[in-house]
Amino acid sequence: MTTGEHRAGPAPDVVRAAYAQLTVTDLAGARWFWADLLGLHVQYEDGDTLCLRGTDELTHHSVVLRRGDVAALDHIAYRVRTPEDVDRAERFFAGRGCPTLRVPAREGTPGVGDAVRVVDPLGFPVEFFHDIERAERLIQRFDLRHGAEVSRLDHFNICTPDVPAAYAHYASLGFRCSETIEGDAHELYAAWMYRKPTVHDVAFTSGAGPRLHHLGLATHESHHVLRAADVLGALHQEHRIERGPGRHGVSNAFYLYLRDPDGHRVEIYTSDYYTGDPDHETYRWNVRDDRRRDFWGNAVVASWYKEASPVCGLDGTVQPVSDGALEESSARVGADGLG
Amino acid sequence: MTTGEHRAGPAPDVVRAAYAQLTVTDLAGARWFWADLLGLHVQYEDGDTLCLRGTDELTHHSVVLRRGDVAALDHIAYRVRTPEDVDRAERFFAGRGCPTLRVPAREGTPGVGDAVRVVDPLGFPVEFFHDIERAERLIQRFDLRHGAEVSRLDHFNICTPDVPAAYAHYASLGFRCSETIEGDAHELYAAWMYRKPTVHDVAFTSGAGPRLHHLGLATHESHHVLRAADVLGALHQEHRIERGPGRHGVSNAFYLYLRDPDGHRVEIYTSDYYTGDPDHETYRWNVRDDRRRDFWGNAVVASWYKEASPVCGLDGTVQPVSDGALEESSARVGADGLG
Amino acid sequence: MTTGEHRAGPAPDVVRAAYAQLTVTDLAGARWFWADLLGLHVQYEDGDTLCLRGTDELTHHSVVLRRGDVAALDHIAYRVRTPEDVDRAERFFAGRGCPTLRVPAREGTPGVGDAVRVVDPLGFPVEFFHDIERAERLIQRFDLRHGAEVSRLDHFNICTPDVPAAYAHYASLGFRCSETIEGDAHELYAAWMYRKPTVHDVAFTSGAGPRLHHLGLATHESHHVLRAADVLGALHQEHRIERGPGRHGVSNAFYLYLRDPDGHRVEIYTSDYYTGDPDHETYRWNVRDDRRRDFWGNAVVASWYKEASPVCGLDGTVQPVSDGALEESSARVGADGLG
Amino acid sequence: MTTGEHRAGPAPDVVRAAYAQLTVTDLAGARWFWADLLGLHVQYEDGDTLCLRGTDELTHHSVVLRRGDVAALDHIAYRVRTPEDVDRAERFFAGRGCPTLRVPAREGTPGVGDAVRVVDPLGFPVEFFHDIERAERLIQRFDLRHGAEVSRLDHFNICTPDVPAAYAHYASLGFRCSETIEGDAHELYAAWMYRKPTVHDVAFTSGAGPRLHHLGLATHESHHVLRAADVLGALHQEHRIERGPGRHGVSNAFYLYLRDPDGHRVEIYTSDYYTGDPDHETYRWNVRDDRRRDFWGNAVVASWYKEASPVCGLDGTVQPVSDGALEESSARVGADGLG
Repeated sequence: MTTGEHRAGPAPDVVRAAYAQLTVTDLAGARWFWADLLGLHVQYEDGDTLCLRGTDELTHHSVVLRRGDVAALDHIAYRVRTPEDVDRAERFFAGRGCPTLRVPAREGTPGVGDAVRVVDPLGFPVEFFHDIERAERLIQRFDLRHGAEVSRLDHFNICTPDVPAAYAHYASLGFRCSETIEGDAHELYAAWMYRKPTVHDVAFTSGAGPRLHHLGLATHESHHVLRAADVLGALHQEHRIERGPGRHGVSNAFYLYLRDPDGHRVEIYTSDYYTGDPDHETYRWNVRDDRRRDFWGNAVVASWYKEASPVCGLDGTVQPVSDGALEESSARVGADGLG
Repeated sequence: MTTGEHRAGPAPDVVRAAYAQLTVTDLAGARWFWADLLGLHVQYEDGDTLCLRGTDELTHHSVVLRRGDVAALDHIAYRVRTPEDVDRAERFFAGRGCPTLRVPAREGTPGVGDAVRVVDPLGFPVEFFHDIERAERLIQRFDLRHGAEVSRLDHFNICTPDVPAAYAHYASLGFRCSETIEGDAHELYAAWMYRKPTVHDVAFTSGAGPRLHHLGLATHESHHVLRAADVLGALHQEHRIERGPGRHGVSNAFYLYLRDPDGHRVEIYTSDYYTGDPDHETYRWNVRDDRRRDFWGNAVVASWYKEASPVCGLDGTVQPVSDGALEESSARVGADGLG
Repeated sequence: MTTGEHRAGPAPDVVRAAYAQLTVTDLAGARWFWADLLGLHVQYEDGDTLCLRGTDELTHHSVVLRRGDVAALDHIAYRVRTPEDVDRAERFFAGRGCPTLRVPAREGTPGVGDAVRVVDPLGFPVEFFHDIERAERLIQRFDLRHGAEVSRLDHFNICTPDVPAAYAHYASLGFRCSETIEGDAHELYAAWMYRKPTVHDVAFTSGAGPRLHHLGLATHESHHVLRAADVLGALHQEHRIERGPGRHGVSNAFYLYLRDPDGHRVEIYTSDYYTGDPDHETYRWNVRDDRRRDFWGNAVVASWYKEASPVCGLDGTVQPVSDGALEESSARVGADGLG
Repeated sequence: MTTGEHRAGPAPDVVRAAYAQLTVTDLAGARWFWADLLGLHVQYEDGDTLCLRGTDELTHHSVVLRRGDVAALDHIAYRVRTPEDVDRAERFFAGRGCPTLRVPAREGTPGVGDAVRVVDPLGFPVEFFHDIERAERLIQRFDLRHGAEVSRLDHFNICTPDVPAAYAHYASLGFRCSETIEGDAHELYAAWMYRKPTVHDVAFTSGAGPRLHHLGLATHESHHVLRAADVLGALHQEHRIERGPGRHGVSNAFYLYLRDPDGHRVEIYTSDYYTGDPDHETYRWNVRDDRRRDFWGNAVVASWYKEASPVCGLDGTVQPVSDGALEESSARVGADGLG
């Protein structure tokens, strides 16, 4: 780190997980899933692109869907505190030998200003930006709410073969850790890390990577989560419900995991807790506690551990994947895990 | 009663409060209120008529809106157990000297079979029918739900100057009494009476009558009630919220009172209790218990006690109104009442 | 039937599923589960017996727990409309060659008046009674509510090897059918039958029998159901959560299945629909529709199909069990079934 | 500000509204209200003091009740980021000519480390501290939850005669402004300001001051808010419900205002929105928009505008009050205001 900082300068001041851009092979199907079912508001639309946001979000988008030949993660994006932090991000990653690409305003994602995109040390395509268009305030437009009434993007969950390396990298970016899943010798199976004072902006699931496990979208109350499942049953699309509804042990949030028409996974998530105190302590779950993944002890389905979305490089090509050394799913206790 | 039965024959076997037909002066405005905001499903529509039903209702309609010059109640309707009960209803009211009118299928309200309409001893236009068209089952069409997601018609609430007379009349029709509001000498201010095993199919509020105080529409959970209020605020139509949300003392239901564009009052109502046991006892509230109308002691607004919809006679003309002898609203205790 | 009626007289007029009496081997553990966790109110207690009721119940009890050497169903009980219906029940079952036992007031279950107990043609111990002590009205004692805040007993679910026979028997008792699960040739896998106008008072699951599959207890809203699961997780008793929370296809209710310390199964259940119209039609699910048991397509665990509580005879001894001819669980489609 | 900074040094880095200490004349009555009814957890208790916290709070307390002769606010307290920020706070207020008092650990409020107390330029007693004892994690102890299940302290609301001066003072402390109520000439009637990224840590209501208007306590869902009102009705304590439940225009939160046995006002509050982006804009309500105080247009009762708790000085004596220049309540539009 010290060497790294000396070489690469200080880390950018990351505000929060800001948006994810996904490539989808069926844009119309994706529009039904993300806008009609989940209730995201369509802020921008052209023949190849949809920019979506939650009811409480005041910036241009938090989910971007682009038509493509392969379903993949194009990039995740973090908002930084100042325009200078975009430059800091470029130096920070370049100094670590990571590929970086400067993306001027109007050449990148609609609504986003000057940005830098990097392939981080974990192999993920990540954008850092400060400037983004504001959007009309819809917080009290209850007349426009529908579907799951998603309020905002909450977090990214990524698969990586080396969780300790992911932890160290995000720590070097100033992220703090709210919760972990650990073995008896404290070997790290999973970690939840944050900049905004919620349980997380990003979490790591041990497994083949780099892959995107899911996007976490927040709703205000648990009945909104149930609503998404009910609508899918009504449309005989219940096969898009992969896991839940349930209560997480980690984060204590009430959750539901869905798969979009391309197989991208989304979590509808409500009610975690405040983590903003300077001495907030990491809460550590043992990998053999049945309740870590589902507080009610319900089994986690195999697909949830095994499947995830591939990620693109800076040139938009899908990146190769390496297998994980440590598989949480092999640590079966009772319902959880898949051993 | 015995004499009455001897003269008029037995009472019809009433199943439940079935539907109300209202005249409205602005059918488009009424469609927005009843279908878009309340979430009733449009089962039938022509230039002058809308037939609406809740998500759980399996018969053709529970609310009918007809274009007219004056906003009024055209009639309330009870479903009876057999076709023969329609004949019994005709004899029952004719025997009491009430005007009756036989309405053959296809000459009355769309979807309703052979019926009889009467002006009851309280001056209200009431229809009794058995046959009604079935409608597609929408109970699990969560994809169609919107607005307040009204599930079914629950009850009628009517204003009458003589509550004891109303009580005696409905008792002679086989209705039982779940709750009352009474003075210290047990003088009757209001009563809730039922055939289906809920708190009521009909309730009486002491006041000038005959007038329709409100239609009670049921939802499954309290967040559906809050939703209706939120949407009205969003549309800057908060003036249509007359009273609530609140918890009733009587019935224990969670409620919200709205006024439609013609001023017809509707209650969105959730969660009362089972009353079907043969020895179910009447629960009696003292008129000076603050909690009877709002269990949280919030004040009842004057308009709620004073305003109501006029009712039509069998010829569709608006009927004159007589003042009430006993005004609950003059019995002020703390928040409640208006004295 | 006609012959049956001629021989046995008319069926008793059953009002509703009234209570179930279970034997438990650990009364203190059962008290924690049924009173503390589920929130049932303790109406009567002695060293060997607990009488419990829901927040909305106005009679003495709906669940009775008695200390015993073997965990079993002692009997289920239906309330009938008049004292004469108790005599009708005795003749009805005696006429069918069923064992019957008259139980005078104060010799049977606390609070229950003159009753008759029978072993019905399906082999189940069933009591019919009219008189039962009233209990203090707790409907608005929100200060006493805790745990899952169970409001009332809703239904019994029983395992029987011959569902068509169970259907015919309960039809002869005047029960009507709200929903079924059927094969392609309409062979009957399961049926939901009612007297009170809800989806059911009793349901049959095809399997070895006579056994009690579960007691269904109602709550007012879905958050009460989630609460029970959360409390079990908090106490690291998540293994008592067998299935759910979920939405049923059949009944559309939101559900959670728990197992008490003796393994007796209870369903916490909310929000079904009105079935009281005289022409209410049976809704038929195909056994291969994934959504019939869980509207969201979540798998049914094996124990839910395989395990159930034994039942006692009139002498209190546990009865032998016969295997089922038709196993729904062998009709696997996607998530559901276990084939 | 520059001058001020030159003289007084930089502002302390405030993390969040941390706790309020109230004097109460009936500690047993206060314990019932704050612990039993609101569901706060008793972390520390002696004959004169109660330290309470919400289900999600990981520090020693967020509400402190001390026995006293007069019901008043002893002090509000903000947590600062580092121990050095306590020194900064002392210099910051001393430099403004405010009385300051250093309170060493173990000499002040139980559980709180080295702190400084000041009388701020608005006349309020305010403590700044960094060190506070950690408390056992109860986030997932659903078995201990009861009453309104308050999760955490959200904000302070204070009455001051000069809202612009309050705005300027808190801006100098680094607070940002989420929402305001303004006249046609943008004269400031009320403002909501924050450090943690919610709608507020502190809000100002124009009126006689310095007085404490209320403490805002957060719950996770709206049914928890309704629960508090239902329990008060059940106990015939409905007179402790002053206003609501309702939806705020400002903040969009669902609210209920209660008065404790000494008349201290508490708001139970759920579901506001994220404000942490660096360019988050202030949302401005016109004082004549009916929906600003209640989004549903329900009237604000007079007591809510007129009554508040007195505040103490550093010596614990109750401070005099000055009248406000600008009374929002005189700006009546429709339901809102009291003109």
